[in-house]
Parts: sequence; structure tokens; C-alpha cells
Amino acid sequence: MIKAVIFDMDGVIIDSEIEYIKNVRTLLHGHGVDVPLEELYYIGGGSGKFYHENIAKYLQVSVATAEAYYKQFNIDFPTDFKKLLRPEAVQLIRELKADGFKLGLASSGTLERIKTKFDQCQLHDCFDTVVSGTQFKQTKPHPEIFLYTAQQLMVAPNECLVIEDSEMGINGGANAGMFVVALADPRFKFNTKRASKVVRNLREVSALIKELNQAA
Amino acid sequence: MIKAVIFDMDGVIIDSEIEYIKNVRTLLHGHGVDVPLEELYYIGGGSGKFYHENIAKYLQVSVATAEAYYKQFNIDFPTDFKKLLRPEAVQLIRELKADGFKLGLASSGTLERIKTKFDQCQLHDCFDTVVSGTQFKQTKPHPEIFLYTAQQLMVAPNECLVIEDSEMGINGGANAGMFVVALADPRFKFNTKRASKVVRNLREVSALIKELNQAA
Repeated sequence: MIKAVIFDMDGVIIDSEIEYIKNVRTLLHGHGVDVPLEELYYIGGGSGKFYHENIAKYLQVSVATAEAYYKQFNIDFPTDFKKLLRPEAVQLIRELKADGFKLGLASSGTLERIKTKFDQCQLHDCFDTVVSGTQFKQTKPHPEIFLYTAQQLMVAPNECLVIEDSEMGINGGANAGMFVVALADPRFKFNTKRASKVVRNLREVSALIKELNQAA
Repeated sequence: MIKAVIFDMDGVIIDSEIEYIKNVRTLLHGHGVDVPLEELYYIGGGSGKFYHENIAKYLQVSVATAEAYYKQFNIDFPTDFKKLLRPEAVQLIRELKADGFKLGLASSGTLERIKTKFDQCQLHDCFDTVVSGTQFKQTKPHPEIFLYTAQQLMVAPNECLVIEDSEMGINGGANAGMFVVALADPRFKFNTKRASKVVRNLREVSALIKELNQAA
């Protein structure tokens, strides 16, 4: 019986990956390295560290330097998260809330980054708990962030449905013993082997939960 | 007898320092550190390294990270050098050229940076020789860049008048045995002890050279 839904932030609630990838292309271009956008799709869904490592590779600089370039770029050109908010995510959250589900957000980003996105997208009243991965020793695919979120929601792991858009997130949810929905983007290929279900659009999730709970 | 004039670029031909300092303030602000502009004046006229070291100090990051922030910032917000070109510098160059003086540019910046400024400010026909400090082992205050420029102009060091806006530049010209004019900006205090003459405006230079050559 699904009683709670745990959302990832980047790539699930906000359609951030294509924007981040465009930013990487612009950053590389500024340093005289031109790469077609499609060539960078493989970075989509990656961690911050994965972004830095790949920028470093293209520019042949240290990862620390690449990280500093990327940080400065994001300060110089702050992302307009409101523009990237998926309306179908807001719709799903509303429906689930009305139906009495407990809702959690489990993001690897810092609380500060989460707050910026919540402020811009007006998401502050949406979740019963908001958990940042930075408070844990290990990040996704370690299950800790999901198990802690379930505890906060006062439900058992197997009562949770997780929505994720990356291999590490999927595996984290699977390692926590949760039902994992992979939100697949045909542009950014990633391993969905351990997902319980793959969807192309968040609009499919409501019906899926009803189905699961009728079968239970 | 003065036969040649050697110009510095940043702070002499282009009024760059206040712009660079404003950029530093904006960069620091982006990282959550607010500093009044006046507090940053002491950086004016400093080398790139001095800029990086001071950004690092304010942000409590490594100098390499500060350098990367600064580099990315300058890519994200390229300086409009045309706007910073001093009309009195162009006027002085024209007068000196008409009067038969040989003209050199001796800048510590890279040839690429010099070219960007020359392109934007249309300075390509102004100088008989353009010398970048990056080809020498030691930078100003080492006299090498000035001695090499004099050689290129086929004049003796004591036939050269150098215009500089920083202590390191002044001392470099003095170490080369040249007549050094310090262009002083009351906002950016620096040691002009070794300058042969301190002026407040480039408009004073033409008359000064006439005076020197009449006395010779």
C-alpha cells in the first residue's frame, strides 16, 4: 500500500537538466571550446561533481578550477527556476495531497539551493518534509536519504513511491526497498534497470498509484 | 633628448582600473560578500595575481579558485574597452606621432589581451612596436620589457620617456634608466617616489616633453 510519495527535485519537479547542459555549452564556448549540445546530453542527470569532471575534461583544467568556473557562471547567470517548473509536477502534488498521501522531497542539493528553487517556484507548502542530501555521509545511490525521509513521514519504506530521473536516484530508492518510478527523458539515456516502473510523463503517476493500491 | 615614448596600457591608455575594481565588487557580492567600492581602491594598478590574491582573501578560498572565479566573470561580462579609452591618450599619441617621436607599448598583459583592446579601441596603427611582458622571464619592476622596447625602437634608454600608473611600472622604467612619468589617480594611491615626474592628466605630457627637450 503506497502511503507516501518522495520526489527528487532536479529533473523531476523542475526540468533543469537541459538548461544545465545549455549552461555547460555556453561556459565551454566562452573558453573557446565548441561542443554540439547533443554531445553533452550524457551529462544530464549527473551529480554536480560529474558536471565539474566533464567541464574539466573539455577544458583540460583541474576539477577544482572547473568547479570554480561553473560556480561563477551560475552566479553570473542565475537560473530562472520558475520557467523550468513542470506544471504536471504541481498538478500531481496537488492531486496526491488532496488524496491524503504524505509527500516528501529528497534532493542531493544543499538546503540553500532547495530554498532558492522553492522560493522561485512557490513550493513551500507542498511537502510534509524536505530533506537535503548534504546532511548525510553518503549520497544517492546510498539509501540513507530515502530511509530518513520515510521516517520523517512516519511510513515504512515499502509504503513509499519514489520518483527519480537518474540512475543514482533510482538505485538509491531501490536500495531503500521502495517502489521506484523512473521519469525517463529520451534525450538523456540512463540505466533504469532497477526501476519498478518507467514513465515518460509525470501525468502517468496518479493512475499508477491507484492501480498499485487497488492490487494491494 | 627624448626621442621615444613608451606607454603602459591598463590605467594609462584605458581607464581600466575603476572598471576592474567594480567587477571585483560585483564578483564578491555574488558570493555574498559586500564590500564598499572605496575599500577596494587599493587593488587598483595591481597585477592580475594581486587581484586574485585579494579576491581569495575576501572569499576565503584558494588563489587558484579566486583566479578561476575572476576568469569566468570576465568571460561572462567582457569589458567594453572602447568605453574606457582615454580620449586624451589618443590625442597625445597623435601629437607625438606628428612630432616624429617613436612610440612603443609595453604591457604586462598577454598579446591576446592587448589585441582585444587594440581591436576594440582601434589602436593598431598607433605604435611602432608593441611588447607583451609574457615573453620575458621577469615582469615589471624588472627593466627587461622597457630595455627590449627601446631596442625595438632603436633608441637608447635615456632617450625614452615611460608613462606608467603603478609602482611596479614606475620602478621598471626607473630601473631601465628612463625618464618616468607617473600618471597619478587620487583614488588609487601608490608609491611614486622613483618617478621623474608626477602628472594628473595625460594632457600635461606634451608640454613636459617640449620642456625636457628644450633644456637638453
